[in-house]
Amino acid sequence: MIAVLKQGTTQAQTQHLIDWLKHMNLDVHISEGQEVTILGLIGDTTRVDMELLGSLEIVESVKRVSEPYKQANRKFHPKDTVVQIGDVRIGGGHFAMIAGPCSVESEEQIIEVATAVKEAGAQILRGGAFKPRTSPYAFQGMKGKGIDLLLEAKKVTGLPIITEIMNISTLELFNDVDIIQVGARNMQNFDLLKELGKTKKPILLKRGLANTLQELLMSAEYIMSEGNENIILCERGIRTFETCTRNTLDISAVSVLHEMTHLPVVVDPSHATGKSRLVPPMAAAAAAAGADGIMVEVHNNPACALCDGAQSLTPQQFADLNQRVQRIREAIL
Amino acid sequence: MIAVLKQGTTQAQTQHLIDWLKHMNLDVHISEGQEVTILGLIGDTTRVDMELLGSLEIVESVKRVSEPYKQANRKFHPKDTVVQIGDVRIGGGHFAMIAGPCSVESEEQIIEVATAVKEAGAQILRGGAFKPRTSPYAFQGMKGKGIDLLLEAKKVTGLPIITEIMNISTLELFNDVDIIQVGARNMQNFDLLKELGKTKKPILLKRGLANTLQELLMSAEYIMSEGNENIILCERGIRTFETCTRNTLDISAVSVLHEMTHLPVVVDPSHATGKSRLVPPMAAAAAAAGADGIMVEVHNNPACALCDGAQSLTPQQFADLNQRVQRIREAIL
Amino acid sequence: MIAVLKQGTTQAQTQHLIDWLKHMNLDVHISEGQEVTILGLIGDTTRVDMELLGSLEIVESVKRVSEPYKQANRKFHPKDTVVQIGDVRIGGGHFAMIAGPCSVESEEQIIEVATAVKEAGAQILRGGAFKPRTSPYAFQGMKGKGIDLLLEAKKVTGLPIITEIMNISTLELFNDVDIIQVGARNMQNFDLLKELGKTKKPILLKRGLANTLQELLMSAEYIMSEGNENIILCERGIRTFETCTRNTLDISAVSVLHEMTHLPVVVDPSHATGKSRLVPPMAAAAAAAGADGIMVEVHNNPACALCDGAQSLTPQQFADLNQRVQRIREAIL
Amino acid sequence: MIAVLKQGTTQAQTQHLIDWLKHMNLDVHISEGQEVTILGLIGDTTRVDMELLGSLEIVESVKRVSEPYKQANRKFHPKDTVVQIGDVRIGGGHFAMIAGPCSVESEEQIIEVATAVKEAGAQILRGGAFKPRTSPYAFQGMKGKGIDLLLEAKKVTGLPIITEIMNISTLELFNDVDIIQVGARNMQNFDLLKELGKTKKPILLKRGLANTLQELLMSAEYIMSEGNENIILCERGIRTFETCTRNTLDISAVSVLHEMTHLPVVVDPSHATGKSRLVPPMAAAAAAAGADGIMVEVHNNPACALCDGAQSLTPQQFADLNQRVQRIREAIL
Repeated sequence: MIAVLKQGTTQAQTQHLIDWLKHMNLDVHISEGQEVTILGLIGDTTRVDMELLGSLEIVESVKRVSEPYKQANRKFHPKDTVVQIGDVRIGGGHFAMIAGPCSVESEEQIIEVATAVKEAGAQILRGGAFKPRTSPYAFQGMKGKGIDLLLEAKKVTGLPIITEIMNISTLELFNDVDIIQVGARNMQNFDLLKELGKTKKPILLKRGLANTLQELLMSAEYIMSEGNENIILCERGIRTFETCTRNTLDISAVSVLHEMTHLPVVVDPSHATGKSRLVPPMAAAAAAAGADGIMVEVHNNPACALCDGAQSLTPQQFADLNQRVQRIREAIL
Repeated sequence: MIAVLKQGTTQAQTQHLIDWLKHMNLDVHISEGQEVTILGLIGDTTRVDMELLGSLEIVESVKRVSEPYKQANRKFHPKDTVVQIGDVRIGGGHFAMIAGPCSVESEEQIIEVATAVKEAGAQILRGGAFKPRTSPYAFQGMKGKGIDLLLEAKKVTGLPIITEIMNISTLELFNDVDIIQVGARNMQNFDLLKELGKTKKPILLKRGLANTLQELLMSAEYIMSEGNENIILCERGIRTFETCTRNTLDISAVSVLHEMTHLPVVVDPSHATGKSRLVPPMAAAAAAAGADGIMVEVHNNPACALCDGAQSLTPQQFADLNQRVQRIREAIL
Repeated sequence: MIAVLKQGTTQAQTQHLIDWLKHMNLDVHISEGQEVTILGLIGDTTRVDMELLGSLEIVESVKRVSEPYKQANRKFHPKDTVVQIGDVRIGGGHFAMIAGPCSVESEEQIIEVATAVKEAGAQILRGGAFKPRTSPYAFQGMKGKGIDLLLEAKKVTGLPIITEIMNISTLELFNDVDIIQVGARNMQNFDLLKELGKTKKPILLKRGLANTLQELLMSAEYIMSEGNENIILCERGIRTFETCTRNTLDISAVSVLHEMTHLPVVVDPSHATGKSRLVPPMAAAAAAAGADGIMVEVHNNPACALCDGAQSLTPQQFADLNQRVQRIREAIL
Repeated sequence: MIAVLKQGTTQAQTQHLIDWLKHMNLDVHISEGQEVTILGLIGDTTRVDMELLGSLEIVESVKRVSEPYKQANRKFHPKDTVVQIGDVRIGGGHFAMIAGPCSVESEEQIIEVATAVKEAGAQILRGGAFKPRTSPYAFQGMKGKGIDLLLEAKKVTGLPIITEIMNISTLELFNDVDIIQVGARNMQNFDLLKELGKTKKPILLKRGLANTLQELLMSAEYIMSEGNENIILCERGIRTFETCTRNTLDISAVSVLHEMTHLPVVVDPSHATGKSRLVPPMAAAAAAAGADGIMVEVHNNPACALCDGAQSLTPQQFADLNQRVQRIREAIL
């Protein structure tokens, strides 16, 4: 961490600050220039309140030079994390295709879709049981019953399942779920993250609509700091000024995250764009950028889906997409 | 709601769509033009899935013409809501000044600050007990003990108190709290909102970092749809590309919300800017724009605050700010 | 165009508005509902001032249902535009790789880079002569001399050239340039666009940092309305809250523009990311998303480039990127 | 400037970098920590290419600790700049109210509005002659004839005039204009800025839709570096995700700019909001935040304005606004 002192700071003031910093077990190196004096703080700066330091009268600005996340940091864990779900692996060169309906609607529906996506090449089944909806008047999901139906579909197809949690109090309903998803709106629900950190279950952590990649890693750090390292990050579009798409897919997040962290990164083109016809090209782009997996919404009858039908592919469209993605993965080797 | 049909849609296709819409208890009016045919859907459209409708092959676009929020809508409740907290009222011409430390740190601290802000003109005491922090390594608040100390400070000063909830499971700790705050990161924690809707307590609902005003009102609607109408909205800065301030205070939100809804609107300039020296001018701007209250952080010793010291005022600075704000309120009458 | 009237509008007021609209040669269809009355305006609405209409006392809101751009609109020109530059074609299935240094620095440099990128598979040579720089103290380009050197490189390699114009008064220096580039900061320099519309030269029009796709097409429309239809659109990243990359590459813009317009779309991953190591994966993503071309910065010695060296590839890196891009293009057929 | 070196950098590599930096006339101070080594670069770093330095293999990151603008920097010119236009002064405690129509439409119109706004308290008359419009099909302004009519209105009322320039080639038409406005879309039209720097005329420089405050000051620096220090900065709203207002007025920009620079800052609430009913509260907020002036659109008949009628006040509304603003200015003393 770097603290830049204001012009006109006296020797005594500087010394006073240095003493305070040393008191926090930091080493301090001084660079004096004509316009500015710079203090380099060496040691564990994760606990230093940057903004408080920056607000001191003699301090002009403070800059962090090492990242505030440790366990998620590739610097300290250079090797790719591989998350294992049954026979399926994600990360470290292993790629997984996750598919299924936005919401579980009925036994017939989820089994039909699960069977179709398995045949089309999916390795993991997705399906929403608890649905975060902007409006209280919209369909809120089948809840516990939805999880039961997903488990039914797992029995029939053998596909491991992923579904979203919205609330700690429902955690035990997820005992047999293979991957627990944390949605974009809960990315900074810190109490939920801590609780998930105490399980050993794989967690798929979605980036919030307006969260930076560093904040995403800080949220992963919340889970890891409680002992759970099975985390899959998910880019699903960010909020920008553009209104042609529901969100703006930040495709460079895939490459940047691969530099910052050892955790695997998957992309959800369905929520990013909100339009089914944009899903195949965005899935292709994600594969080309090196994503470790893709999660897409597939419905047997998109026009009748209770939720997000607009962004769902038919099983046939998904099969085509999957083949294109596989060809692209070979092309980038 | 309006659906615009694509050129080349056949008579039969149009009729098919109209039948489907009528089946949903909607009346349909048709406007045929040279380039486009427009269907006007009349009736309760809150349950229509706009995106699904828009994804149908013959539909070019769908636009909502009435707001998806009802109970928060000024159109249906033209009169200002006044939220009453003990003797203090907010809204409908009543203005309240809310002040206190970011975090409760000790009995001595909270009582000292409470006494000082009361003397300086505050009507409500704020203080964080549960603290949402980006980093798992940062101070997370005194939790239940913090609420006890706030109640102690209330006993000493008579000021009603406001503090933030992060998690439904702690709700009963808030039994004696006067106003429950929902933080920006929890604005779309829908399960929490529903639970708070079942209480009758005043709720201060903060706008999320990247949430539109309509989304803020949809979250208020979640609370109201469960029966609690005591809601105070709070603008606290949004996330933009500018990095000089922590967030960008959207001052026009005050005026726009006053048009959209009957609920009172307060402004938090401390979190919006992150810098104590920007708090007084932004508080002044909020008062000039017609806010129903202002919430600011005040600490007896900002340089030693455990959290957000950089944005805290001293009691003396707060007293000056309060006087300026009162003068501005007279100036805009 | 749709105008939604406020509740309580009288018959006489509605009639008055209808008369005014008919006076503007618009047909008006009325849909009366319980809560709202909707007017459908049929005819040429490109000249109607939406915001003025929306500000009338009886009007609640106004929505456009047909696009304000005509000549760039795929609806009226379904066939892909193919821009021809010598033997090179862009659009309609034709793909071009554009490469070269950020700035022309010397005869030796530009000829060395031009020769290298040609060998590595580039079809068009890029190079900046007039350089828009944020700081007045930064290198501003070789200007006219830079164009001469580009023409020299064209003579040696046979590659057509593209370079940026900043100012109408320099237009005649571009007489022998093959493609004139309009930079992101000039996307809404309307006088410049009109002047370029009077030439017949291919124009590469970059999207502004914070411009919507519709605004990009309106700027294309400025050029086309003066008679020049040889326009190539370029996505180069937009400004968002994320700071890990210089800009956020909006990869979905490729697919969305292909729906909205018949004009070809190329992607510039160098300016979008600002970091050379992110260029190859983003170029791959652009190809996978269906871009009609890619424009990248290549320098024989990036560490010594006078401008934007950080984002330049070496010729060898570019050759690898080009091969990967070609493989991906085959994979998405 | 600070350069952070990667772990594992050898002594020889570090020395090589230091030699290179010294070669650029910079002093280098070294702070070695366990995880990172930090180089502090002392001297004139305005010419150092931060991104290039950051792209070197051994460099992890580079941070600027002193601002890249010099002449606009309050640090080097602590005293407020006062811009003098005839008898009117802006800055250093002097406040000016600028009012007039969006576009000049006719002699009758501009003289009627000019007379009305003078009576209501305006000190400067605004009016657009050259109009930057998103659509080529929209009214583009009366151009040179519009300037003639503004000069006519100046003769009648004595009010100095401000009008926008779009293009260097029209500069001589502005000979008798008192303040030349650079619009938001031209904030980074660097050739135009340089040319305006060669005049001695007061320039009102509007912030671009998506430009940071630092970029605004860099554009001011372009003008100042050519010798013209008569610059008034103007905040007019930035582009964000919120769609309720045309732009988001960044009210904190007023206070932040006053810290960063000695140049005066005015606010344009008309373009920021796009709706006349939001103009009075936003003007009040701007005055409360300490703006040095306010620029608003006033039209004698807003419903018939050829351009931006939706955001124009009537003369009576402006008179009320002006009185409120004056009362607020007294309240904040």
